Amino acid sequence: MAKDMLDLGQDAARLTAQLVDIPSVSGDEKTLADAVELALRELDHLEVLRFGNNVLARTNLGRAERVVLAGHIDTVPIADNVPSRLDEDGVLWGCGTSDMKSGVAVQLRVAATVPEPNRDLTFVFYDNEEVAAHLNGLGHVAQAHPDWLAADFAVLLEPSSGQVEGGCQGTLRVRLHTAGQRAHSARSWMGENAIHAAAPVLDRLAAYQPRRVDIDGLEYREGLNAVRVEGGVAGNVIPDACVVTVNYRYAPDLSEEQALAHVRDVFADCPITEFEVDDHSGAALPGLSHPAAVAFMAAVGGTAQPKFGWTDVARFSALGVPAVNYGPGEPSLAHRVDERVDTAVILRCEERLRGWLTA
Amino acid sequence: MAKDMLDLGQDAARLTAQLVDIPSVSGDEKTLADAVELALRELDHLEVLRFGNNVLARTNLGRAERVVLAGHIDTVPIADNVPSRLDEDGVLWGCGTSDMKSGVAVQLRVAATVPEPNRDLTFVFYDNEEVAAHLNGLGHVAQAHPDWLAADFAVLLEPSSGQVEGGCQGTLRVRLHTAGQRAHSARSWMGENAIHAAAPVLDRLAAYQPRRVDIDGLEYREGLNAVRVEGGVAGNVIPDACVVTVNYRYAPDLSEEQALAHVRDVFADCPITEFEVDDHSGAALPGLSHPAAVAFMAAVGGTAQPKFGWTDVARFSALGVPAVNYGPGEPSLAHRVDERVDTAVILRCEERLRGWLTA
Repeated sequence: MAKDMLDLGQDAARLTAQLVDIPSVSGDEKTLADAVELALRELDHLEVLRFGNNVLARTNLGRAERVVLAGHIDTVPIADNVPSRLDEDGVLWGCGTSDMKSGVAVQLRVAATVPEPNRDLTFVFYDNEEVAAHLNGLGHVAQAHPDWLAADFAVLLEPSSGQVEGGCQGTLRVRLHTAGQRAHSARSWMGENAIHAAAPVLDRLAAYQPRRVDIDGLEYREGLNAVRVEGGVAGNVIPDACVVTVNYRYAPDLSEEQALAHVRDVFADCPITEFEVDDHSGAALPGLSHPAAVAFMAAVGGTAQPKFGWTDVARFSALGVPAVNYGPGEPSLAHRVDERVDTAVILRCEERLRGWLTA
Repeated sequence: MAKDMLDLGQDAARLTAQLVDIPSVSGDEKTLADAVELALRELDHLEVLRFGNNVLARTNLGRAERVVLAGHIDTVPIADNVPSRLDEDGVLWGCGTSDMKSGVAVQLRVAATVPEPNRDLTFVFYDNEEVAAHLNGLGHVAQAHPDWLAADFAVLLEPSSGQVEGGCQGTLRVRLHTAGQRAHSARSWMGENAIHAAAPVLDRLAAYQPRRVDIDGLEYREGLNAVRVEGGVAGNVIPDACVVTVNYRYAPDLSEEQALAHVRDVFADCPITEFEVDDHSGAALPGLSHPAAVAFMAAVGGTAQPKFGWTDVARFSALGVPAVNYGPGEPSLAHRVDERVDTAVILRCEERLRGWLTA
C-alpha cells in the first residue's frame, strides 16, 4: 500500500499514526485531503463531495435524524515532531496527535465500519482551522454549501480528553481609543494626555465582576480583560492617542448583539473616542437538551463540561445545528512540541461513537 | 578669504550666515570647531583651549568676576535648508539659524570686539548637544576639566527670543512596572492581569495636581505625565507585564533626590513591582539674585521668564555656577525645516552683551 493511501482497516490508533505521518500544515493540506477523499470513495455506502481541500461524505438512508461528525485535517507547523512515535505506554507522540488527527482517525473509522448507522451521517474533513478565521474551511463550506452541513446534531472531534464539552463561549475583541492633544512634556498644560484619559477604562476592567452562567447544567465563566494597551509618542511628548484592547469571553446565553451592547455599557461613561470591533465570534449553546444530544450523552457517558475556548461548534450553532466537542485529544497538549495522545482514549472514543450509531 | 575661515570683522548677523553655511551636524563638528579655534587664536587677548571638538577661549585679566558665554556648535540634521538665505525682511533662513549659530555668532563677536571686558570671560563652544546626553561636549568638558568652566555666572546662548530665561526645570523619567500571570483569556480566572494592575497608576496621574512654584519672581509650572504605556502578549492571553513610563518635569526648588522621592510617594500605594529610573537630569536654579545676574538683567533689559524645558544651564548649576538662557534664536522654530531667525534680534543681543561687559 502506498504511503499516502490510507488503510481504514486498521484501528483508529494506528490510523492516527498514519495520518500524522502525512504532513498537513495549514495551507498545505492537499496531499492529506486527496488521501481522505480517495479512501472515502472506496466506501460504496457513502456519497463523497469536495470543495477546495474540504472533503465531505454522507449516508443517504432516509433516517429520522442526521448527525455531523466534523474535524479539521490541518495542524500547526511541525516542530521536529514528525514522524510519529509510539512509546511502550501506548502514547503516540507527534504533531497533530491530539489536535486533531486522532479525532479524524475516529471519524474515518466510523465512516468505514458503520455502513448502516441508526442516524444518517455526514462526515466533514476541513482545512485551515489553525489559522485566520476567514481561511477556515468549515466556514467556506458553510457559506458556499450550507445544505451540506444540515443536520439535527453535530459532534466536533476537537481534543476534549474523551469528555463531552458543550457549546462554547463567544469571544469579542474591541479596541477602545482615547484621544488627547500633543505637547512638549515640559509644557504639559498645553496638551491633553490620552493615556490619562484611559484611567477609567482600566478602572472598569479592574472592578469588573464576571458572570457565572448555568446553561443545561453547565457553568460558563465569563471574563472581560485588557489584552493589550498601547500609547505614547516619545519620552518628552504628551501622547495624543491610547488604545486599550479588551477581550470579552461570554456565555452562550448572549447573542453577539447582546455581548457588544454589554461591553459598550461597561465603558459607557469613559471618554472613548472610538469603539472599534476588532474581532467577534459568537457563542454556541451546548444544545444538550436536544433528543439527539441526550442519546449521545447516554451512549458516550461521562458528565458534560462547559467549553470556555471558542471552537468551530459555533459555526454549527450559527447554522441552527446544536453541537458538542468530543474527541480523544488532550487540549492542554495541543500546539506543543511534546504533543501526544493516549491511544487507549482514541480506541474508547471510536468504540463509544460506534455504539451510539449502531444501538 | 577661504570659505571655512571665519570673518569676525563682520556683524553677528552676517557671521551667523557664514556659520550656517559650514555644516556641523552632531558628530560632524570638526570643520567648524577648527574654524572657530583658528579664528580665536588670531585674538591675542585670549587663551585658547581645545578638548575634542570643544573649543574654549578666555581672558585672564584678574577681574573680580568671571563670566561664561556658552553655546553648542552642532545642529540637527540638515533638511535641504543649507546654505542660508536672507530675505528682504531681514530674516535669515536655514538649519541652525535659531538653534543656535546666531548665539555662537554673538559669542564670537563679543570675543573679537571686547578685548578688555569688565569681567573676565570664558567662551565655550561645544559639540553634540542635539544628541544623547552622554555625548554632550559640555558634559565632557565638565567631567574632564571642571576648572575650565569655573565662573561666577554663565550665559547660555540657546534660543530664547532675546529674552532672559532663568534656570531650567528638571526632568525625571521613570518606568513603572506592574506584573501578573499569563493565562488563556478564555480562562482568565487562571491568570492575573498586569494591565488591570496599572489602573491605580493612571488614576494617580489623572488626579495629579501639578505645583506652580515661585523662585526669584519666576513661576515654574510642573507636570507629571504618562508618556508611554505598553502591555500585552497576544489577543487571547492575559498579560503578565505592563509598563507605564512617567515623565516628571519639576521646578528647580527640588533636588534630584527630592524629585525621585516625590514620584515614589505619588505611586506608593500602587502595586508596582519595579520602579525603574530611565533618565534623570536635575533642574537649575535661575540664580537671578546673584550680583552678576542682577547686573546682567539691568544691562540686557526685559523681564526674566522661567525656562520649562531642560537645557545645559543645569550643567553649570551642577558645578555651582548660576546660569541663564539668553540667545537671539526663536525656540519654537528650532529643528524645523523652516528654521529662521530675525537678524535684528541677533544684532540687539550682540549690542546688549557688549554693553553689559564694557559698562
